[in-house]
Amino acid sequence: MPRALEGVRVVDLSHVLAAPTTSMILADLGADVIHIEPERGDDSREFGPFVGGHDRNRSGYFISLNRNKKSLVLNLKHETGKTVLRELIRISDVVLENFRPDTMDKLGFGWEDVRKINPRAIYCSICGFGHDSLPEYGSRPAYDMVAQAYSGLMSITGPEGGPPCRVGSSVGDIIAGMQGAIGILAALRYREKSGRGQCVDIAMVDGLFSVLENAVARYVNTREIPGPLGGAHPSIAPFQGYQGKDGQWVIAAIGNDKLWAQYCKILGREDLIEDPKFKTNPLRCDHRKEMNAILEVEMAKKTAREWCDIFEKERIPYSPINTLQQICDDPHIAHRKMLVEIDQPIVGRMQVCASPLKLSETPGEVYAPAPMLGEHSEQVLRELLGYSAEKIAQLKADGVINKTV
Amino acid sequence: MPRALEGVRVVDLSHVLAAPTTSMILADLGADVIHIEPERGDDSREFGPFVGGHDRNRSGYFISLNRNKKSLVLNLKHETGKTVLRELIRISDVVLENFRPDTMDKLGFGWEDVRKINPRAIYCSICGFGHDSLPEYGSRPAYDMVAQAYSGLMSITGPEGGPPCRVGSSVGDIIAGMQGAIGILAALRYREKSGRGQCVDIAMVDGLFSVLENAVARYVNTREIPGPLGGAHPSIAPFQGYQGKDGQWVIAAIGNDKLWAQYCKILGREDLIEDPKFKTNPLRCDHRKEMNAILEVEMAKKTAREWCDIFEKERIPYSPINTLQQICDDPHIAHRKMLVEIDQPIVGRMQVCASPLKLSETPGEVYAPAPMLGEHSEQVLRELLGYSAEKIAQLKADGVINKTV
Repeated sequence: MPRALEGVRVVDLSHVLAAPTTSMILADLGADVIHIEPERGDDSREFGPFVGGHDRNRSGYFISLNRNKKSLVLNLKHETGKTVLRELIRISDVVLENFRPDTMDKLGFGWEDVRKINPRAIYCSICGFGHDSLPEYGSRPAYDMVAQAYSGLMSITGPEGGPPCRVGSSVGDIIAGMQGAIGILAALRYREKSGRGQCVDIAMVDGLFSVLENAVARYVNTREIPGPLGGAHPSIAPFQGYQGKDGQWVIAAIGNDKLWAQYCKILGREDLIEDPKFKTNPLRCDHRKEMNAILEVEMAKKTAREWCDIFEKERIPYSPINTLQQICDDPHIAHRKMLVEIDQPIVGRMQVCASPLKLSETPGEVYAPAPMLGEHSEQVLRELLGYSAEKIAQLKADGVINKTV
Repeated sequence: MPRALEGVRVVDLSHVLAAPTTSMILADLGADVIHIEPERGDDSREFGPFVGGHDRNRSGYFISLNRNKKSLVLNLKHETGKTVLRELIRISDVVLENFRPDTMDKLGFGWEDVRKINPRAIYCSICGFGHDSLPEYGSRPAYDMVAQAYSGLMSITGPEGGPPCRVGSSVGDIIAGMQGAIGILAALRYREKSGRGQCVDIAMVDGLFSVLENAVARYVNTREIPGPLGGAHPSIAPFQGYQGKDGQWVIAAIGNDKLWAQYCKILGREDLIEDPKFKTNPLRCDHRKEMNAILEVEMAKKTAREWCDIFEKERIPYSPINTLQQICDDPHIAHRKMLVEIDQPIVGRMQVCASPLKLSETPGEVYAPAPMLGEHSEQVLRELLGYSAEKIAQLKADGVINKTV
């Protein structure tokens, strides 16, 4: 199948999660991503789960994020390493990095340097508070949790009245990574028309702040400060999770009074339908606690699976609250091919999450495994830069690239 | 300033949140988005907060999502309404919708219909389980909460050992909306080369499943089922929120033993540094409960703000857990111009969240307010389709477009 980003070359100086998410999206769409790694490898090669033994080439975390990419080990403290990087940037479309804001400038590869090397290059940086930030913010280490906390997202996530909770996946990194991909694709389009590259400055805090949606609209327009609501909907009831007798959870999404009557009948509690405390949605919201005391008892009479089957048949909007086991084994995920197998060098067959970008002509695809550390160093220098075998041997001897894979 | 997507026209049949997020991103980047609304308006015009009175043109929710777009009221149950839509699709680049899977087919504007009208069109659908789904899934109503529950995200979000929690913003809709934008931009690039349009089929469940990162890698490789971890890091301690004496929260991110020693000194608890239960990170993870009993008491001795100031000065990685009030009033958000003012018809001056896409040449921008219902019906028909005043008057009389704004 053709790929949407065929012919787009990315020099990827990223590590761990935010910018590697960007380059994963671009690589899934067919871009040629050259992941530049230091001799010790991307830090995330040290992150578990390890598959079949602790080793830099066996991190399930690294592999899932870096499928489809190439790995070039390059010593950027060495002058010759810098020369190689400069030559690669000259023939590439995108430069991507997620160091602290001053790191690339110090290396001599900030945006102002890169645009001199290649004025058509699109330079994308991702960091906690942005390259254009207040001086004291730029140097702060910004872990995903810092972005989740700083942006306000944690303050609206968690049980009602309880402690603020972190979203269970690193959305501070991932959403910024997605925004990086959007910015790069937009910049590529602009370059088609103008011939000019530009700089894309993504901040993880901005990224999460921009997805708070109604919480921001509510605060700026009413000055009400929203808090966490657990698993419930603020203005519809019941519209939340209940625990079945097996301890598994199921969402009942009773959006109107007609559904309420149907739901009460299913529970064998017709007496609740016209109960003056529960008969309309506003009443149910007002008496949510009392209502839940009753519904929790009723819902504990069958397993979550049994409820799902009944709700499906009776057309009650619902969802199981799936565990990772349940969703990974789910027929929907299988039908959508959202988990795919790769042949990973050293590791063998393993599963990774597929691309959600289901395009009819050029779908996002997992077409290659993740690279072993330095796997493509020689290939990249030979094929893209035309280096001779002698020159490559010299670079190995000088510690500019890896000696072995 | 030039805009990256100038010249890209989007026929936007979306409502509420998922696909409107896609068209907001495209409009912020300069696409000409024509939001087709039924006579009663996009459902989200009825969502609060309302600014200065309950009215379809005063929803802060609708306004924040629909800035930069045009509104064309079009009766698609009327044959002439369908003709108008067909003519618009013929001269547009993108068709976007987020109805249930069979709705557009029934209207005569599914992908197979649209590609006949305009083979260069890019058709993007967003729904809960995807257009290509198992038969029983496609017809399920998929609220954001259904996607959060079904995908596994809720099962890893919330307090440790506690009930699964919903992420406080509608990331099921929003992440799918961002993936729609990525898919459309990739498809536009492919069209530049091939001349062909294509269909982008985004499922909210896929979207969230694809951002579970380590949870999926962990489950598929180890069969361990991850659960919620509250506000803590699974393998670093202390790396979580503590409550100050004012009840506000602050994250202390003590990533290594050197920081631990520094942190203990700041707390005036040098005795803890070499404590055999706490002196290394693995020990602190093992004795997390005991450690937290001590740290919670110490952290309650100053306000969160005081801790932030001390941690900033002493270079301890930290973050306040900001409320919406704190983040909206934050100097970083001001510096990054992440809240901007618009002149909204009827409403007046109001704030909306800006674009996080900070591109140096073609930044995402809020350059126009949200449209009043049907505000651009006449303009679109006159300027884009060349309709005469008489023809437009007839369409009004026939109830095909709105009579007044």
